[in-house]
Amino acid sequence: MKKLINDPKDVVSQSVEGFVAAHGDIVRAEFDPTFVVRTDAPVSGKVGIISGGGSGHEPLHSGFVGAGMLDAAVPGAVFTSPTPDPILAATKAVDSGAGVLHIVKNYTGDVLNFETAADLAEADGVTVRSVVINDDVAVQDSLYTAGRRGVAGTVLVEKIAGAAADRGDDLDSVAGIAEKVNASVRSMGVALTPCVVPHAGEPSFDLGDDEIEIGIGIHGEPGREKIPMESADAIVDRLLTPILDDLPFSSGDNVLLFVNGMGGTPQIELYIVYRHAAKVLADRGITVARSLVGNYTTSLEMQGASISVLKLDDELTQLWDAPVQTAALRWGR
Amino acid sequence: MKKLINDPKDVVSQSVEGFVAAHGDIVRAEFDPTFVVRTDAPVSGKVGIISGGGSGHEPLHSGFVGAGMLDAAVPGAVFTSPTPDPILAATKAVDSGAGVLHIVKNYTGDVLNFETAADLAEADGVTVRSVVINDDVAVQDSLYTAGRRGVAGTVLVEKIAGAAADRGDDLDSVAGIAEKVNASVRSMGVALTPCVVPHAGEPSFDLGDDEIEIGIGIHGEPGREKIPMESADAIVDRLLTPILDDLPFSSGDNVLLFVNGMGGTPQIELYIVYRHAAKVLADRGITVARSLVGNYTTSLEMQGASISVLKLDDELTQLWDAPVQTAALRWGR
Repeated sequence: MKKLINDPKDVVSQSVEGFVAAHGDIVRAEFDPTFVVRTDAPVSGKVGIISGGGSGHEPLHSGFVGAGMLDAAVPGAVFTSPTPDPILAATKAVDSGAGVLHIVKNYTGDVLNFETAADLAEADGVTVRSVVINDDVAVQDSLYTAGRRGVAGTVLVEKIAGAAADRGDDLDSVAGIAEKVNASVRSMGVALTPCVVPHAGEPSFDLGDDEIEIGIGIHGEPGREKIPMESADAIVDRLLTPILDDLPFSSGDNVLLFVNGMGGTPQIELYIVYRHAAKVLADRGITVARSLVGNYTTSLEMQGASISVLKLDDELTQLWDAPVQTAALRWGR
Repeated sequence: MKKLINDPKDVVSQSVEGFVAAHGDIVRAEFDPTFVVRTDAPVSGKVGIISGGGSGHEPLHSGFVGAGMLDAAVPGAVFTSPTPDPILAATKAVDSGAGVLHIVKNYTGDVLNFETAADLAEADGVTVRSVVINDDVAVQDSLYTAGRRGVAGTVLVEKIAGAAADRGDDLDSVAGIAEKVNASVRSMGVALTPCVVPHAGEPSFDLGDDEIEIGIGIHGEPGREKIPMESADAIVDRLLTPILDDLPFSSGDNVLLFVNGMGGTPQIELYIVYRHAAKVLADRGITVARSLVGNYTTSLEMQGASISVLKLDDELTQLWDAPVQTAALRWGR
């Protein structure tokens, strides 16, 4: 294992230290327990939004803390849910009295620990609503999940719910928007290589020299099948067909097309994936109205990509276009 | 070789097609010959700025085309200089009569082909100035270079020169600013793994399971030495000491600290690198006034990172902070 780290046990804390040192205009961190929070939290009158989960998916979630998106993020150990303690602390840190939305990817540990933290926060007088993200169409149940997994679609939920909170929506409305995005987005991924969790020191699963895994989870959980390597266009077809058939998406729809890198895939390849995905959508009469391409929900250094398609309406489009100022995603203002 | 591509010979053209499809609000492409250009080029009265070079370093350079940065980018084949033809075409496409600056990384092929294109453009009545970037302190001469190589510091030159052109500076002034940034920035990198050029199909160089290369070039050219794997902090010391000693940087300086990923390194590791680099600078009495962390000058899927330090004054800081709206780097507005 070759990684730019000092000690596997310090990976998350030292990375968070570097992160807030680099982006001190936007975020600060607490370390006992550990979370990342906007420097100006709680924002008076605004619904607070937090997310979190195991580390190793950066920029998800800390990279999305800032104006127009998350108020705080709670990073667990690599690929391990954060405990209720830091989730509770982050919840309290972002509550201005307007309540707090928890955006939770659907993994058993995450769901349980966010629920516990929400109960404790409610007992302390903070109103909490939770939205569980389950956009991955690849498998019904999985290694760490009852039901579908939450993957890259989470980024879109965080951006759009963040914009709703920013324009002054109340907690029920922000939670409703988040639910709507989750209900309107579908995702699926492919792995070309496994990744190495620092404290494990060896690959999280095996893939042959000419083998790929269709429907991979973001922790390397099994997907639908291992198949021999194919062309980018053929792989895109394998990912996109189940996505489009599931909602279903149909002719006349406006969508956001999100091609997400798993961490180790060159950008030049992500745009080759985007190119064919956009063509497939056009062939089906679906209009790509907005796009996002890059490494936003990663699995350490895994090579691979996922595709997410979000059905847009005027409100979601307007919220997507709203200004955002985070370490990883920014425009406007 | 597992890559999300269709055919090695189509990698650049298909990636450019995807890139402009995803970012059609900012850029368009020409394909005969191939270059990427702002949709609103030439911008009336503004000095045009172009850069280019071999593909495989994305988002460099196409990702930096847009308001406040480059007017066009010329991607060659992977790790291969573009020919004079597309450089000439891009030069003409961005000239509004105020002249065009060529930002050229110091590789023999790039320098030669940009020179030829500049001569042809001048013959056609376009005034061209060129600035050659050579920020890499690792080696004096190298596989493809007489003198020092141009690496990640190029991003900083493009951003700051772009802001100077955007505020209305004339060609001599924009070229002068670019020269000043190049004279004030120093960089050095490390590779943990090699990368695979698509048409070659095998790793560009060899590294043992526990070996890294200090001073690596962005095409995998040899650096200073191969050494056994070390801690992130020890590696940062090896990169930063030659950088700081070279300019030299000294106590009281304000700097921009840029930690650049080579493509395949998880973001969590880049921030561990940033953390120690910032500490070393603080210990030397150097103030980190601005930061940039991410994959901006890559070598396909290479694992590794580079550090660049730019000495700032008030003017460079103001130009760095100016709004920018490109696919890969954006803030403000």
